[in-house]
Amino acid sequence: MAQFYDKLETRTPAARERALMRDLRALLAASRSKAPALKSQMKGIAPETLKTRADLARIPVIRKSDLKAMQQADLPFGGLAAGRTSALMRILVSPGPIFEPEGHDPDWWGAARAFFAAGFRRGDIVQNCFSYHLTPGGHIMESGARALGCPVIPGGVGNTEQQLEAVALLKPAGYAGTPDFLKVLLDKGKEAGLDTSSLRKALVSGAAFPASLQKEIAERGIEAYQAYATAEFGIIAYETPARAGLVVNEGLIVEIVRPGTNEPVADGEIGEIVVTRLSPEYPLLRFGTGDMSKVLPGVSPCGRTNLRLAGWLGRADQTTKVKGMFVHPGQVADVGKRHPDLGRLRLVVTRANEQDVMVLKAESETRDAGLAGAVAATLQAITKLKGAVELVAPGSLPADGKVIADERPV
Amino acid sequence: MAQFYDKLETRTPAARERALMRDLRALLAASRSKAPALKSQMKGIAPETLKTRADLARIPVIRKSDLKAMQQADLPFGGLAAGRTSALMRILVSPGPIFEPEGHDPDWWGAARAFFAAGFRRGDIVQNCFSYHLTPGGHIMESGARALGCPVIPGGVGNTEQQLEAVALLKPAGYAGTPDFLKVLLDKGKEAGLDTSSLRKALVSGAAFPASLQKEIAERGIEAYQAYATAEFGIIAYETPARAGLVVNEGLIVEIVRPGTNEPVADGEIGEIVVTRLSPEYPLLRFGTGDMSKVLPGVSPCGRTNLRLAGWLGRADQTTKVKGMFVHPGQVADVGKRHPDLGRLRLVVTRANEQDVMVLKAESETRDAGLAGAVAATLQAITKLKGAVELVAPGSLPADGKVIADERPV
Repeated sequence: MAQFYDKLETRTPAARERALMRDLRALLAASRSKAPALKSQMKGIAPETLKTRADLARIPVIRKSDLKAMQQADLPFGGLAAGRTSALMRILVSPGPIFEPEGHDPDWWGAARAFFAAGFRRGDIVQNCFSYHLTPGGHIMESGARALGCPVIPGGVGNTEQQLEAVALLKPAGYAGTPDFLKVLLDKGKEAGLDTSSLRKALVSGAAFPASLQKEIAERGIEAYQAYATAEFGIIAYETPARAGLVVNEGLIVEIVRPGTNEPVADGEIGEIVVTRLSPEYPLLRFGTGDMSKVLPGVSPCGRTNLRLAGWLGRADQTTKVKGMFVHPGQVADVGKRHPDLGRLRLVVTRANEQDVMVLKAESETRDAGLAGAVAATLQAITKLKGAVELVAPGSLPADGKVIADERPV
Repeated sequence: MAQFYDKLETRTPAARERALMRDLRALLAASRSKAPALKSQMKGIAPETLKTRADLARIPVIRKSDLKAMQQADLPFGGLAAGRTSALMRILVSPGPIFEPEGHDPDWWGAARAFFAAGFRRGDIVQNCFSYHLTPGGHIMESGARALGCPVIPGGVGNTEQQLEAVALLKPAGYAGTPDFLKVLLDKGKEAGLDTSSLRKALVSGAAFPASLQKEIAERGIEAYQAYATAEFGIIAYETPARAGLVVNEGLIVEIVRPGTNEPVADGEIGEIVVTRLSPEYPLLRFGTGDMSKVLPGVSPCGRTNLRLAGWLGRADQTTKVKGMFVHPGQVADVGKRHPDLGRLRLVVTRANEQDVMVLKAESETRDAGLAGAVAATLQAITKLKGAVELVAPGSLPADGKVIADERPV
């Protein structure tokens, strides 16, 4: 039995990197003039100069949290889509509303590879329990299953009894949906005496899959694999039989960036997942997903050679309110830019005497009152809020991706 | 602007009939051995002998009301599907459960033609408000819109506020869904001050579209056209700009049959819509939909030359219970077969003295007590129920498709 969906998965990392950069240059050269927001994002940067990740890092990150405002200013896709809206296959609507385009490629969201890695093969019937309505989840999974040659029962969410009847009578080999709804199906099926034993494979996404639930699902005879997906990109990374992190999907360039900034973190540090998508319809360039993860060292024991992510490690958008004013991770980063000798920064927000209190912890070789005072002045100038500054030894702050640590009691 | 979806629509009726019969013979020759129920339905009839509708009428009708039992006996499709289940694109689940296959043809349900006739053109954005979950409605409409080159917003049913936001911001040109939900969208949009004026076209199905609602929708600036669709066939017939009945879809052979029998009615009479579908995956042969209609004379003023139906004229399955016993239209037809000189038959069920009463009205040239007595004996033999027989003049019973008229107070 084939172990890989195609040969792309086992290329050398260097060959993949060359191909991605080459395709990126070609895509940007062709798309830039069609997508006004892409054009302004690339201002001063010629596509042909993008040869390495260091080159890529010169481009400002566009953040998911800015997408709604960008779209409202330039409907429907904020100037980030490169084709005519009338030539799309679908337009999806996520809560916000935030709109997502879908093109005509049979596996536009790249899910076939994730199904394959989860053990699905041509002819396996898939019960797809993501919603098809407005949001892309159901369509991401359905197009991937179809591209792999798997017939789909479009279950959607809810209608649990009808879905169980379908499982009992149609005997699908696998499930796609949230881990939670898989448990609901198995539990209710048992209650109702309906046979769910045909389900032996699962591709789960869209929610946490805690170890306790992983164990329970496995004990019920189902091999469930996780995928990390978003409404802009479809499948960004997926688990493989190695069970050692999530392998990044082909056709994407994934970086881990310090929250609120444009700079990639050091290898292995936690930061925001920033993705570049080589799609002619939606050529997203350095798009910050708002999710955090880190890159695992080395390659997967399964043989796939792409970058591996550790899974979802929290939300990157740490914007918070202090004394009624918004404080953004980007403001903390700006303090660092004005004091380039500082190392890692961490703004800790607590409560004392029924008041919000802000302390900026900053790694520094030199730790004297003069520097602390200067940094405090910068902090106040940038945030319009007073805060103490505590200079700490280099390497003493946790590498957990947190730029703003909100430690106030809930 | 092109008036027709393709040249098939304006073929001469004779050319279409020749092509349909030729394709039918080829399909049955290829499919018969793969679909056990089709094989037994065709017992004693060689595919190559099917040259006219009279030949077709020798084949027994399979009725929608028998489908669930057939499927339970031979999962999933009752022996009526001709390919491997694992090679399908989707498996749909209608209430019952009744299962429907969907193949890979880009417009497997034949909806593109109906969209075209309703004025939709390539590039028009369609808000598709049929459900995509389990049942085929959403998929029927989506594949048709896509085949025509229209981007789809997969709205589904409900989520009215989010759907209205999508209409206001994405400005779809047209709507697909039930007529009722279109009214809900327009009413709630007005209430909420959300602009729905982009909607100028609609393809409605799945529910009655009374004249009062037609008028209201038209006054709001939307040209809405009806389609008649089922979960087995997709679009069976669709309205055209002529607004003169529903034109039968290409690729289908539609007959009007006396309810409970295998015999086509005379031209223009009301009866059950029986459909033969030229689909390699699901070669349904003389499948009784359970819906009634009649054929309109002549061809449509729009230029499409296919048969026209008058629209939905009631349910054909008139099976009822009399004194606790089921009485089927087929039993009434059996009475007629044993007395071939009788014309049209109508079993009228009423209440008298708190008892069910059955009177069989039968058209007959001779009307004497001897014949009436003989017919009453046959009626009792077949139904196990006593009933009076009333012989009436030929042509005096209404041609409304009713074989059993249940006139008991509800």
